[in-house]
Amino acid sequence: MVCGRISRLSVRDVRFPTSLGSHGSDAMHTDPDYSAAYVVLETDAEDGLQGYGITFTLGKGTEVVVCAVNALAHHVLNRDLRDIVGDFRGFYRQLTSDGQLRWIGPEKGAVHLATAAILNAVWDLWAKQEGKPLWKLLVDMDPRMLLSCIDFRYITDVLTEEEAYEILQKGQVGKKEREGQMLTHGYPAYTTSCAWLGYSDDTLKQMMDANQRWDVPEAVEWMSSLAEFKPLWIEEPTSPDDILGHATISKALVPLGIGVATGEQCHNRVIFKQLLQAQALQFLQIDSCRLGSVNENLSVLLMAKKFEIPVCPHAGGVGLCELVQHLIIFDFISVSASLENRMCEYVDHLHEHFKYPVIIKNASYMPPQDAGYSTEMKAGSVKKHQYPDGEVWKKLLAAQGN
Amino acid sequence: MVCGRISRLSVRDVRFPTSLGSHGSDAMHTDPDYSAAYVVLETDAEDGLQGYGITFTLGKGTEVVVCAVNALAHHVLNRDLRDIVGDFRGFYRQLTSDGQLRWIGPEKGAVHLATAAILNAVWDLWAKQEGKPLWKLLVDMDPRMLLSCIDFRYITDVLTEEEAYEILQKGQVGKKEREGQMLTHGYPAYTTSCAWLGYSDDTLKQMMDANQRWDVPEAVEWMSSLAEFKPLWIEEPTSPDDILGHATISKALVPLGIGVATGEQCHNRVIFKQLLQAQALQFLQIDSCRLGSVNENLSVLLMAKKFEIPVCPHAGGVGLCELVQHLIIFDFISVSASLENRMCEYVDHLHEHFKYPVIIKNASYMPPQDAGYSTEMKAGSVKKHQYPDGEVWKKLLAAQGN
Repeated sequence: MVCGRISRLSVRDVRFPTSLGSHGSDAMHTDPDYSAAYVVLETDAEDGLQGYGITFTLGKGTEVVVCAVNALAHHVLNRDLRDIVGDFRGFYRQLTSDGQLRWIGPEKGAVHLATAAILNAVWDLWAKQEGKPLWKLLVDMDPRMLLSCIDFRYITDVLTEEEAYEILQKGQVGKKEREGQMLTHGYPAYTTSCAWLGYSDDTLKQMMDANQRWDVPEAVEWMSSLAEFKPLWIEEPTSPDDILGHATISKALVPLGIGVATGEQCHNRVIFKQLLQAQALQFLQIDSCRLGSVNENLSVLLMAKKFEIPVCPHAGGVGLCELVQHLIIFDFISVSASLENRMCEYVDHLHEHFKYPVIIKNASYMPPQDAGYSTEMKAGSVKKHQYPDGEVWKKLLAAQGN
Repeated sequence: MVCGRISRLSVRDVRFPTSLGSHGSDAMHTDPDYSAAYVVLETDAEDGLQGYGITFTLGKGTEVVVCAVNALAHHVLNRDLRDIVGDFRGFYRQLTSDGQLRWIGPEKGAVHLATAAILNAVWDLWAKQEGKPLWKLLVDMDPRMLLSCIDFRYITDVLTEEEAYEILQKGQVGKKEREGQMLTHGYPAYTTSCAWLGYSDDTLKQMMDANQRWDVPEAVEWMSSLAEFKPLWIEEPTSPDDILGHATISKALVPLGIGVATGEQCHNRVIFKQLLQAQALQFLQIDSCRLGSVNENLSVLLMAKKFEIPVCPHAGGVGLCELVQHLIIFDFISVSASLENRMCEYVDHLHEHFKYPVIIKNASYMPPQDAGYSTEMKAGSVKKHQYPDGEVWKKLLAAQGN
C-alpha cells in the first residue's frame, strides 16, 4: 500500500574520478569523471522506506543539476505519495511545466536531468512500498493505471492513449511465459568496455560508435567506406538534435546493411517521436537518466513498438545498468514481446557502489529480485565520493594543489 | 585595438518581480519574474573597459544558469581577448564542447543559456574596445573574419563556409545605402504588449501566439477554424522541439494564408537548420539570449537568407530588445537586404534598467550609437534587484514571510 507524505528531499553531488584512468572516455568526452546527482526522498510513513534516484553526469556540471533539483524540490515536498502516483501524469506535468523553470528547458538540459533524478526516486519509493522490483511493479500494473503515468502531450499525432492501450492489451498475451523466460534466462547484454561477454570477435567488430563526431555528409562518406566490415550499426553519427540528418544517414546506409543507432543524448519523447516518424534510426537507445524517468521512457517504448523499431538501451556510466534493466525487462514482457535484434548495453564498472548491483549470468541481465529501482547507493560510497568534500576528492584536490 | 587578459568574471542573479502585475504572462508561463543571469568581464587592460552579458530567464532557474556560468568560467579566465576573438570559432567550440559539461547539454538548456550570457559579454567587450556599437562592428568586419566566429559543425549539409561567404559578398552590394536607411528610418518594430506602435487594429488582429499549447492535430484544427480572421502567423503552435510537427502544421496552414512563426525556444542552430530544411516555418524568430550569442545567431541569419525565410526576432523580456536590435540591423545591412515581411518584436518594459536603452522612433528601432552590445545594466538596478539579497527582494520575501 502506497502511503506517506514526502517530508524531506536531499540531493548530493557524487563523483568517481574515472578520468584518472581514462575510463569511459570517447571521441567527444575525453576526460569524464562518472558522476551522479543523487536524490533521497524521505516520508513520514511508519515503514521508514526511502526513495533513491539518480541522474548520470560526467563530473563538472553535476553541481548545476544539483542546483536544478533544489529548484524543483518545492513541487515534491509535503506531497502525499498517494496523490503523486494517483495522478502521476499531472505530477510529471507539474515538474516539467513549472511556469518559471520551463524557460531553462523545456524538458531538456539540466532541468530535465534533475526531473529524471527526482522521478527516479519516486519510482524507487513506490516500488519499495509495493514490495516489488520496479520491472515487476510495471508488469503487474493495470494498463490504464500505467498509461496514467504518461504525459502524451506533443506525441498524440503518433501515439494516442487509446493506441497505447491496445498495445498493452496485446502485450498481455503470453506475458506469464515471457516473465518466466526472463527469470530463467535473463535479458541479453552486450558490452562496450574491453571485456566482452560471451560474444565472439566478429560480434565485437560489428559495433561502431561515432559519438556525434560527424556532420551529415561526413557520416555518410565514412560509413560507406567502412561498409565492407559489415557493422551492425553506427551509433550517434551526428548531433543528437538532428532528426533529418539521421534520416539522411539512415537512407544512405540501410541499403549497405548498416543501421543507425541513437538515443543516449536525445533529450525527450518529442525527439524520439520524430526519429521514428522520419525512419531515422534502426535501433533506439533509451536512457534511464536523461529522459523524464520511467514516465517518459514508457511513452518511448510504446512508440518504438508501434513503429516496430528494436530498443537497445544505453547503459554504463554510474547506475545506468542498474536502472535500465528494469525498463527493458518490462518492455520484453509487456510491450515488445521480442528479443530479435535486441540487447542491452552493459559496462562492468562502478557496480560495487550500489546496494543492489546488476547480476549478469551467461551474458544476460538477470531480473532484479529486490524491491525498488536498484537506485540505492552504499552510504559509504556516497560519503567518500561526495564532491568536493568526500575523502576521495579531498585527497585528489589537495594533490592537485586546489 | 583589442587587448587585455580576462582577469575576472562575475555573475549575478537579477530578478524583476513582474509576476506581481502578471506582466509577460502567457499560456504556458503564467507567473514570470523577468530575470537575467548577468555576467561582467573585467580585463587587465589599461582602458578599464568591461564586458556585460545577459541571458534572459523567468525567475526560478536563474540560479541554475548562474551555477552553469560559474562552471564555464575557467574557460574564460586568464584568456587573452586577442586570442579569443582571433579564433572565436575555437573558443565557441571550447565552451560548447567541454568534455564533462556537454553531457548536461549539449548546446541546450541551462548550460547553453550560460554560454550565451558569457559570449554576449565577450562581444560587448570587443565592440567597446573597437569603439563601435555591435551592429556596426559586424557590418564593418571582413567577411572571412566574421565567418571565423561561426561554428559550422552540424550545419554543413545546409550551409558551408564557402556558401556563407558568397552570401556575405553579395551583401556588400548596396550596404552603404542600407546603413544610411537604418540610421535615418530605423528597423520596423511591432509590439506584443498592450500598447501597439503605429499599427492599426487590423494589424493587431493579425498576430496569434499559441505558446506551445497544442499538439499537432489540435494546432491544425484550431487554426483552420480561425483562418477567417486572416492571422499573419501562428506563433509557437506546438513543442519547440517538434520540427516535423511544425512542418505538418505549415503544410496545412500555408494554403489558408497563415504562416508558422517560431524560434524563441529553439535551442540551437541544428533545430533552426531542420526547421528550414523541412519548410516548417514562414517566419524565423531568433533569440539573442537562447542561442549561443552572436556567433550562433550569425549562422542562423545566414541559413535563413539561403532559404529566403524572413527573420522576425523575439524580444521583450529583460534586455532582449536591447540586444537583438543589433543583430537584425546587421542582418538588414549585410545579409538579407530586405524589409519585406520583416519586423522586430518590441515590448515597452524594463528598459529603464539599462544604461543604453533602445530608442524607438516612428515605430522603429533606431540603430544604437554607443559602443558595445547595449547589455550594460545600471549598477543601482542590479544592486536593488539581486536575488535574494537586493532591497526589492528583501522586502518582498519578508512580506511573504519567507
